Amino acid sequence: MIKAGIVGSTGYAGAELVRLLLGHPDVEIAWLGSKSYIDKRYSDVFRNMFTLVDDVCLEDNIEKMAEQVDVIFTATPQGYCSSIINENVLRKVKVIDLSADYRIKDVETYQHWYGLVHQSPQFIEESVYGLCEINREEIRTSRLVANPGCFPTCSILSLYPLVKEGVVDTKSIIINACSGTSGAGRGAKVDNLFCEVNENIKAYGVASHRHTPEIEEQLSCAAGKEIILNFTPHLAPMNRGILVTAYANLKETISENETREIYKKYYDKESFVRLLPEGVNPETRWVEGSNFADVNFKIDGRTNRIIAMGAIDNLVKGAAGQAVQNMNIVFGLREETGLMMPPVFP
Amino acid sequence: MIKAGIVGSTGYAGAELVRLLLGHPDVEIAWLGSKSYIDKRYSDVFRNMFTLVDDVCLEDNIEKMAEQVDVIFTATPQGYCSSIINENVLRKVKVIDLSADYRIKDVETYQHWYGLVHQSPQFIEESVYGLCEINREEIRTSRLVANPGCFPTCSILSLYPLVKEGVVDTKSIIINACSGTSGAGRGAKVDNLFCEVNENIKAYGVASHRHTPEIEEQLSCAAGKEIILNFTPHLAPMNRGILVTAYANLKETISENETREIYKKYYDKESFVRLLPEGVNPETRWVEGSNFADVNFKIDGRTNRIIAMGAIDNLVKGAAGQAVQNMNIVFGLREETGLMMPPVFP
Amino acid sequence: MIKAGIVGSTGYAGAELVRLLLGHPDVEIAWLGSKSYIDKRYSDVFRNMFTLVDDVCLEDNIEKMAEQVDVIFTATPQGYCSSIINENVLRKVKVIDLSADYRIKDVETYQHWYGLVHQSPQFIEESVYGLCEINREEIRTSRLVANPGCFPTCSILSLYPLVKEGVVDTKSIIINACSGTSGAGRGAKVDNLFCEVNENIKAYGVASHRHTPEIEEQLSCAAGKEIILNFTPHLAPMNRGILVTAYANLKETISENETREIYKKYYDKESFVRLLPEGVNPETRWVEGSNFADVNFKIDGRTNRIIAMGAIDNLVKGAAGQAVQNMNIVFGLREETGLMMPPVFP
Amino acid sequence: MIKAGIVGSTGYAGAELVRLLLGHPDVEIAWLGSKSYIDKRYSDVFRNMFTLVDDVCLEDNIEKMAEQVDVIFTATPQGYCSSIINENVLRKVKVIDLSADYRIKDVETYQHWYGLVHQSPQFIEESVYGLCEINREEIRTSRLVANPGCFPTCSILSLYPLVKEGVVDTKSIIINACSGTSGAGRGAKVDNLFCEVNENIKAYGVASHRHTPEIEEQLSCAAGKEIILNFTPHLAPMNRGILVTAYANLKETISENETREIYKKYYDKESFVRLLPEGVNPETRWVEGSNFADVNFKIDGRTNRIIAMGAIDNLVKGAAGQAVQNMNIVFGLREETGLMMPPVFP
Repeated sequence: MIKAGIVGSTGYAGAELVRLLLGHPDVEIAWLGSKSYIDKRYSDVFRNMFTLVDDVCLEDNIEKMAEQVDVIFTATPQGYCSSIINENVLRKVKVIDLSADYRIKDVETYQHWYGLVHQSPQFIEESVYGLCEINREEIRTSRLVANPGCFPTCSILSLYPLVKEGVVDTKSIIINACSGTSGAGRGAKVDNLFCEVNENIKAYGVASHRHTPEIEEQLSCAAGKEIILNFTPHLAPMNRGILVTAYANLKETISENETREIYKKYYDKESFVRLLPEGVNPETRWVEGSNFADVNFKIDGRTNRIIAMGAIDNLVKGAAGQAVQNMNIVFGLREETGLMMPPVFP
Repeated sequence: MIKAGIVGSTGYAGAELVRLLLGHPDVEIAWLGSKSYIDKRYSDVFRNMFTLVDDVCLEDNIEKMAEQVDVIFTATPQGYCSSIINENVLRKVKVIDLSADYRIKDVETYQHWYGLVHQSPQFIEESVYGLCEINREEIRTSRLVANPGCFPTCSILSLYPLVKEGVVDTKSIIINACSGTSGAGRGAKVDNLFCEVNENIKAYGVASHRHTPEIEEQLSCAAGKEIILNFTPHLAPMNRGILVTAYANLKETISENETREIYKKYYDKESFVRLLPEGVNPETRWVEGSNFADVNFKIDGRTNRIIAMGAIDNLVKGAAGQAVQNMNIVFGLREETGLMMPPVFP
Repeated sequence: MIKAGIVGSTGYAGAELVRLLLGHPDVEIAWLGSKSYIDKRYSDVFRNMFTLVDDVCLEDNIEKMAEQVDVIFTATPQGYCSSIINENVLRKVKVIDLSADYRIKDVETYQHWYGLVHQSPQFIEESVYGLCEINREEIRTSRLVANPGCFPTCSILSLYPLVKEGVVDTKSIIINACSGTSGAGRGAKVDNLFCEVNENIKAYGVASHRHTPEIEEQLSCAAGKEIILNFTPHLAPMNRGILVTAYANLKETISENETREIYKKYYDKESFVRLLPEGVNPETRWVEGSNFADVNFKIDGRTNRIIAMGAIDNLVKGAAGQAVQNMNIVFGLREETGLMMPPVFP
Repeated sequence: MIKAGIVGSTGYAGAELVRLLLGHPDVEIAWLGSKSYIDKRYSDVFRNMFTLVDDVCLEDNIEKMAEQVDVIFTATPQGYCSSIINENVLRKVKVIDLSADYRIKDVETYQHWYGLVHQSPQFIEESVYGLCEINREEIRTSRLVANPGCFPTCSILSLYPLVKEGVVDTKSIIINACSGTSGAGRGAKVDNLFCEVNENIKAYGVASHRHTPEIEEQLSCAAGKEIILNFTPHLAPMNRGILVTAYANLKETISENETREIYKKYYDKESFVRLLPEGVNPETRWVEGSNFADVNFKIDGRTNRIIAMGAIDNLVKGAAGQAVQNMNIVFGLREETGLMMPPVFP
């Protein structure tokens, strides 16, 4: 059994890790770390876990944790993981960081968009961006996996084949996205109160959201040249789900079928990326609670644009599920282990 | 492997059966019956099942189904199961009926509340009311299990220890309940449109809801005398969940602790009934997607009443989950098999 | 023009007062008091008021306010109004208190349920409980109106005719109620975050909610004898609305028609209480945004109980709307002035 | 008093017309037309109107209606208004058509996108596109006003100043929009059931939505040259509201302030278009229940694009409210009459 520790187990992403690891046949949760709920019974914080998790929350002490576990998940605010990690820890355990600290290779870019001084830039180079479908091989041998952001996961998976194959004009990419409210975390803020979110939709972080450089870096890497794009997230009145609607100009006329072959080339053997049938748009309800990313596209002959679309559950494929998928890869397990639960509908 | 057939697999309860059976290690779905979607790919009706279920829907033909499967689940409107079942079918397969047709032993009562003539009253006597925690032994040897209604499951589990032990005045029972909208089914009705249900709460079936006699019969059986009670369901703007708040006069003063012992006597060894810690009220969010029934109670010394409370997921413990639990019992499997998924929150 | 000041104008009830007073032909808002947003533009706090309200928030200084206005609304937490009010203020202006400070005549009861020492008990006796339909005459000449709580308004209006006319056994009253989340206020609490409230329903304050003694006192007054009852509020995933489902034993058999006449006796001339047609249950969607209270009842011959039901918008008839109705009465205006806006649906 | 008739008064837009006209000081509703509810009391269909509207629904007979009213609103499916209108009607009354029948000047375009043969193309030329802020003068003297679609209203108001002033590359326009579910109408369809819409977001009509040519025609007119663009609507789990997030390439570098002046040039004197302060994004919650259109923009220097944003209530400024605004213009009333109700929040 793989022993797992979670730093920040009492946020929404941390709690989803607990849910998924409870159903994983090869993992045992050995340390439930928390900042706010130390010594409190975990099932008093998340009552869905009553009778399933008997443990109390322990401190978020990565050093001690590293003595007792095989893998550490850090589900903490930006800047925290990079401030506590060190060579000693990395020698003992595998680390899968759900924060943004190691996602961006260019430390200046990270520091600019996040407004933070990176506390351990020496580990950036060796860390691997854990978008499993794309970096599977590098992940296999990594000791520090940077688990992708929720919006980047959905955006990149939606656009990757088009960018990689050079189908679209990389200067023209615009990504419009909607997220459920669990993406905003469990902190007590007026803006996230029920009455403020319910019956409302809004854009936020327009032209300034921190997931922008992460998407740009990964797509640039796929394209082999620098990509600058627009990314606009919106907050939707629902618990879970991310929907991406992305636009790009086609470099040349391409048929529906040719495009479909391009998507198939990348996703046909993937268990978690589902290329939907022609004419069927991704919807968040069809992936809720699961690790699936549903993608599809539509070509608009009138404007010569392609609309690439994707849907994920932000807490699963957009966070905890992909973290478990990364763990499976790192530990040489079947990638689907513990992750094949069907989406919950309605 | 147990082969399962589902009559009515394209309703919400049928779809939940598919979800649960997909995760069941000992079952294989062999027949997806439907009235409206014959020959249509199942995953075109429920797109969450894309890549997970490749089959097309077949007709709801119970005779043919009985040739090919070991267990048949009927998730159909009232009156349908009793019109198609016969000795020939029951000789070949086990039947678990999710409708109300065999829940009520008194056929007059059934016919009065449902406004239907019962088509096969000869099977009522042998059928077993499948509230697993209470009728486990009878279920084991039954060939026709009447899977309980969603409101009755939650109501009975909340009140059973109090009624069975004679703690409350059985003339004084009032059950107030709220349900998510999936309980209303997937039929296209104006009343169930998003804009009609959202931002609204209403009582319905006041003093006339069909689940009333089902609850009364079961609690009467527990009390050893006839119980007449009030049951008022409400429709709440959420997908899933049933919450019961039940009131009864205490026959004599009883302490919190004594009452807790009574509940423990019945539920301490149950995997799916969770008696919550003192002062913690059941909430539907903590059971969503799971087979748990969370129960608790509060004694009001001022009025000498007890308030018994329960929460379930109407599609799981209130329908498909309990049906699988019944199947496990009937086939001699561990009762928890395929049903220990943690609740999904948020 | 009546000049109005609002203490606590930046909570949900305060904001609803602003909305209603903006549409009132005889009132001008002269002071927008706030504790947290002093010197901040009001429309930066509630952006729906952009271009409609240009003022900035002022301090919650009741003394200064009393120099400049004719009526003061206090929409503040319990205990605050009673700590700042004094004879000097009451000599100059009318005060309509939306908190609980003057609702309960028995100061011991107030102090017991609210856990507060009452800071100005000398004004309790002269204050009038502002349930307009019942205390209209006393309100007319009052200088301190205790605006009723949201649950009490709906509960009392639903049950009043039955209790007043002695139709029900006053020992048997049970009130089950559901509220939208705006009733919980705009404070930043984890429990009121979108993801915690959405897709959930729960009871709270079981056998201990502070609105219990308020309901009991008013119904006792109507009955002419002490009433002790059960009141259980629930939190529902919607912004606005209160639904009451109340149960009581009938003292004697009574027909639907006779009961209807009793309700008509009290409500037939009321503009804001709508006795619905037979068989139509109150629903919160039909009163949203309006000052209406929809009521109806159902007799259950089987149990000899009556189920009395009511629906209001908690922020209008349950708070700001009734406060304006009280102001209209106090200032001798037509009671409906500024309050006849139809409910907003959907 | 202006006498008004409504063809299709029992849909969501028709019901909103009733709500608004009830509050209009110069209008009396004289005919509530309906196809499905003839002879049924209107307040039995929309119970929010109980005690406010006593009339029964009459047939949708435009000829008879024209004898008795001064203005007819047609809130009916596409193709219906154009099939019943004639010179006789137009001579007697003003017609404000809330459907798409007269919005598009090019009849071929209409027939292509709507898949209908236009039944009265002879009236297309004289009809005026009723986007009040842009076509006020033409509306004044029109006898047939084509009330704009909900998405087009919000899209055009968001982009108009930029297109009219030639700030953006008209080949680059992409409009991404989200709508509440009331936009889908009150028909009983599985896709619009609560459980299908709730906890979901999806794009629909991708590259094929019928509002596309309407937006294109109006913006082309503003630009003085043909514009082809992308428009993608999404369905969001809320009752009301439309949010537009539109993207366009800037032709030349332009400052925030210069752009703001351009918006002010068009909207500074408008009562219903609110240009929000810098940095404040439109949100649907701040306009709900009102006739306001909130707009703003953000310049992205990195990509040289502008993001134009807008929010309206789809049933008010996007339908019934704008229809009343058009009526006010046509009848020479103050344009704001009956429409200055503040947005309802929360």
